Amino acid sequence: MTLHLSASGAFKAVFQSFDDLADGAAGPARLEALRAELARQGFDGYVVPRADAHQNEYVPACEERLAFLTGFTGSAGTLVVLPEVAALFVDGRYTLQAPAQVDGGAYAVVPLAQMRPDAWIEANLPRGARLGFDPWRTTLDARERLAKAVGAAGGILAPLDTDPVAAIWPDRPPAPRAPIRLLDLSVAGEDTAAKLRRVQEKLAAEKLDGALVSDPHGAAWLFNMRGADVAHTPLPLAWCIVPAEGLPDLFVEPTKLSHEVRAALAGHARLHASADLERLLSAFARGRRVRLDQATAPVRLSGVIEAAGGTVDKGADPITLMKASKNPAEIAGMRAAHVRDGAALVRFLAWFHKEAPSGRLTEIDTVEALETFRRAGGQLTDVSFPTISGAGENGAIVHYRVTRTTNRAIHPHELFLIDSGAQYPDGTTDVTRTLAVGTPTEEMRRHYTLVLKGHLAIARAVFPEGITGSQLDPFARQYLWAAGLDFDHGTGHGVGAGLSVHEGPARISQLGHVPLAPGMILSNEPGYYRTGAYGIRIENLILVERREIAGGERPCLGFSTLTLAPYDRQLMDLSLLDGAERAQVDAYHAQVAAALGPLLEGEDGAFLAAATAPLAVA
Amino acid sequence: MTLHLSASGAFKAVFQSFDDLADGAAGPARLEALRAELARQGFDGYVVPRADAHQNEYVPACEERLAFLTGFTGSAGTLVVLPEVAALFVDGRYTLQAPAQVDGGAYAVVPLAQMRPDAWIEANLPRGARLGFDPWRTTLDARERLAKAVGAAGGILAPLDTDPVAAIWPDRPPAPRAPIRLLDLSVAGEDTAAKLRRVQEKLAAEKLDGALVSDPHGAAWLFNMRGADVAHTPLPLAWCIVPAEGLPDLFVEPTKLSHEVRAALAGHARLHASADLERLLSAFARGRRVRLDQATAPVRLSGVIEAAGGTVDKGADPITLMKASKNPAEIAGMRAAHVRDGAALVRFLAWFHKEAPSGRLTEIDTVEALETFRRAGGQLTDVSFPTISGAGENGAIVHYRVTRTTNRAIHPHELFLIDSGAQYPDGTTDVTRTLAVGTPTEEMRRHYTLVLKGHLAIARAVFPEGITGSQLDPFARQYLWAAGLDFDHGTGHGVGAGLSVHEGPARISQLGHVPLAPGMILSNEPGYYRTGAYGIRIENLILVERREIAGGERPCLGFSTLTLAPYDRQLMDLSLLDGAERAQVDAYHAQVAAALGPLLEGEDGAFLAAATAPLAVA
Repeated sequence: MTLHLSASGAFKAVFQSFDDLADGAAGPARLEALRAELARQGFDGYVVPRADAHQNEYVPACEERLAFLTGFTGSAGTLVVLPEVAALFVDGRYTLQAPAQVDGGAYAVVPLAQMRPDAWIEANLPRGARLGFDPWRTTLDARERLAKAVGAAGGILAPLDTDPVAAIWPDRPPAPRAPIRLLDLSVAGEDTAAKLRRVQEKLAAEKLDGALVSDPHGAAWLFNMRGADVAHTPLPLAWCIVPAEGLPDLFVEPTKLSHEVRAALAGHARLHASADLERLLSAFARGRRVRLDQATAPVRLSGVIEAAGGTVDKGADPITLMKASKNPAEIAGMRAAHVRDGAALVRFLAWFHKEAPSGRLTEIDTVEALETFRRAGGQLTDVSFPTISGAGENGAIVHYRVTRTTNRAIHPHELFLIDSGAQYPDGTTDVTRTLAVGTPTEEMRRHYTLVLKGHLAIARAVFPEGITGSQLDPFARQYLWAAGLDFDHGTGHGVGAGLSVHEGPARISQLGHVPLAPGMILSNEPGYYRTGAYGIRIENLILVERREIAGGERPCLGFSTLTLAPYDRQLMDLSLLDGAERAQVDAYHAQVAAALGPLLEGEDGAFLAAATAPLAVA
Repeated sequence: MTLHLSASGAFKAVFQSFDDLADGAAGPARLEALRAELARQGFDGYVVPRADAHQNEYVPACEERLAFLTGFTGSAGTLVVLPEVAALFVDGRYTLQAPAQVDGGAYAVVPLAQMRPDAWIEANLPRGARLGFDPWRTTLDARERLAKAVGAAGGILAPLDTDPVAAIWPDRPPAPRAPIRLLDLSVAGEDTAAKLRRVQEKLAAEKLDGALVSDPHGAAWLFNMRGADVAHTPLPLAWCIVPAEGLPDLFVEPTKLSHEVRAALAGHARLHASADLERLLSAFARGRRVRLDQATAPVRLSGVIEAAGGTVDKGADPITLMKASKNPAEIAGMRAAHVRDGAALVRFLAWFHKEAPSGRLTEIDTVEALETFRRAGGQLTDVSFPTISGAGENGAIVHYRVTRTTNRAIHPHELFLIDSGAQYPDGTTDVTRTLAVGTPTEEMRRHYTLVLKGHLAIARAVFPEGITGSQLDPFARQYLWAAGLDFDHGTGHGVGAGLSVHEGPARISQLGHVPLAPGMILSNEPGYYRTGAYGIRIENLILVERREIAGGERPCLGFSTLTLAPYDRQLMDLSLLDGAERAQVDAYHAQVAAALGPLLEGEDGAFLAAATAPLAVA
């Protein structure tokens, strides 16, 4: 189908808001109320993380403590409240946004690059002061860092049994209760019994009596269930205790389960309300060795295990690595999602190239158009994250989120960066394209081509089993390095199959210490950001596959690209691409044309044919 | 000068022995004596590391406990003695050598790849047994691993105050007492006062009261002194306490100091005999925070600090990183050493190419010839490690050491790998060349060229400040990976300036987590090993330098190659090298010719000219 939509208002984004959402005005009063509540509980200060109890990336509205207290709506941050001062620590993404949202009289905004909360606490906590922390939303790792800082300051660190923020939050939204649905085996590819067997074998091999699965993505994978408790990820909030033998205990709010779903789950687990978690974990842990992820599990629950006379075994949740390697059904779903998504993308690109030269399109217009093209496919369930839509200098802000305030027109001769993704019932996408409006400068083309060369180097990489993403990451940077340039983010993150668009443990970055394995899906997204001028990023999702190599001695792996969308040929400086690189682009474009051609007609089809034609040889 | 030496016996190696040195026959009796001594001291078992108290790579003869007990002469290993069983753990280098040297009835040889000592102890230590360890030769890290294993086995771990090996070793060689010499400032490049100031600034910045310098290379650097207490490294064994303010305490045997040296050192330090170390460290540590390297410092000395009421601050010795970045005088010395060494190498190569086709040269002949050519330069003080000289399948053994037993002729149509280095008063070298004898096979040429491509990729790499060796390492492997091949060692190690040929903390390997910095010198030595057939390795030393890049945004670094010796062009498959790579080889060869041409005459000069002529374009 070809949608003939103009930029006149026929487009709409329903999964993303452009409101500023800032309510910093209430900040000072809420800070005073919090201090009063802390005093009532016998504390001098408090650490408010942005996390929920599962350390989720997207948290329900009832967990937006930082936004409630300060007005800051970023996706990461830490607030430390002391008797005289309060500081909000934010990373490089939010050093502009945070000061604009919060009341500077009440809250000092501190860039993390300048000072870490630990150092600030060490410098500012009065000797002998009692600093509280939230035992449900603080991990073992985080508590250890806090304890060191508080110890150095001569203070006392202790958990607060009663959440002081909830106590001063009268109109706090209720916890989400989205219904849980179960995946068909044709989509999930492996039933719960088989998955449970693998997890329990792993637990036995590591001499563990069980594991606390605190990451709800783990329970979602194990029980082949999906929900809608948070934005952009079909995640049902849940806890789970998996014993080395026998039935797991699954903790979900009963109201989220239909009779059918309850009956199906009851075949694989004992079902409980979340309120029973501590009691049953305590009963389970007595005399047992229980695996717990120190980077994500709450301090509260390690305390429960220890108080019960159990042993906390800190380590990786065994599900995390299993979930990362997708099975054939998941891969088929991801491929189908990418064909569907690719067709929508090409329709969007054809529309953009027609409309953009007018100079009247805005960043928000393009977000609305892209979502509309995706919705028109009929299977879109959500965007997989808020689309990053950055014209000119906004493109140079790596995690730019357009709002009504920052929205601006895309002018001719600018670069436009659009990073977006979709959730479908069978898969998740994440794709970035950088587009030229009118004629790009030579410098823009050179920088784009250096980024493209790194992106291509990752896509064609072949490497032995055992190699980690940290070892591949430099391939994406080598051409930028040779030009004295670089980018300040990882090259790629793991991606879930119809789950979170950001998934561990594999990644292509200096922090990627997990060997890549067949079935893993990662993003390949090098970039270059010219502050105040433009941003370039090129992103495809790639699947790790086995490679047979004649004469090879080691089992090897390589990547197959899932994303289907042409690169912008106007931005390529062909003189910087060697013959092999040009052939690689042509082969990819041929694959895009073959997959999407049958789905596109008229102007869209013509656009695809032109955009994927072989590169002209100079 | 041109040396016209034949292979008739005019060559001699004085710095390297080819004897097997194995004395495994005494092993069973010595094991029984050790067990009796352990019983006398109230212990059931004992862990014998190969290390000395400084964790030196080369240890004095009096520290060769493993060789004394078992006959095993490898450079790394751990022996664990229990009442009924004893196991010698060796890495992949020694899995053939160790069983040939030790009495298998007394000692089981266990490859580390199969089982770690910890796991073996956990499985074999009887419950309740007392396992002893050597507190002087065991690091904090090693004790922690031991404690975990012994704890899991239900045993007791304790240090032995009296060395039980020394107690049963009547003819133990005396400790070395080589005279210490001081470097001229023109060689050292920075005087002790300036170095001490930098170290003390660092200690103050880290809020430390002092550091125990347990690595004698640190004291050698700080006091610009050299010695000869161990093989192949001009190292004076020494300990040092550096306070954050004031004079350091330097512990060296008084007999190693001439009046002049003693007087010069006394200007910078209080001098003591090593026997006074514990007493003075104890006095220093009281109430103080003392830096101690947990990976190399003995448990014994951390105990001294703690017993004195001091605090052990585990971390890197601040000297290690300072020493790694060579100053202009050191770099000039290293360059001069490489010119001298390069001339000797070319003479050797010219000789080899003339003599080898006869098929009569042996591995030992080439070692003797190379050392003789180096000695003929008049300034050789030692080889920097025993030359690895491997023909055919012996070349595939990464750390092959030729002995009278393994020595074999180098046959036509084989590959020959020679990895060697020299110590000169002004610098240290380390170079590997792989040489074809007669006509190599296509496969040999393809593999050589893949290794060469990786070597060239490292040599030309440009990268921002902050990048570590682990990020560069994959560049050396990418072409092998694409062919399904790899090599199982790091790409490069740090190299000392007129000190140890293996120097931390920087390295080009997965373990290289230290940012590279100007003045660091590393090896660049990718390889490929075809088991049972041939080994390929190409090694140059490279110096980290600043790079100015037009249009660049980040301060960048690159490498300048120090080693001067042609690559074997017979082994290059030019069809696998692109134009840029061929130009890179030509530029390097031109640099070699320019530096060495003036030093070489006659046949040697002609060989150099031919070996460094531009590559023919097909």
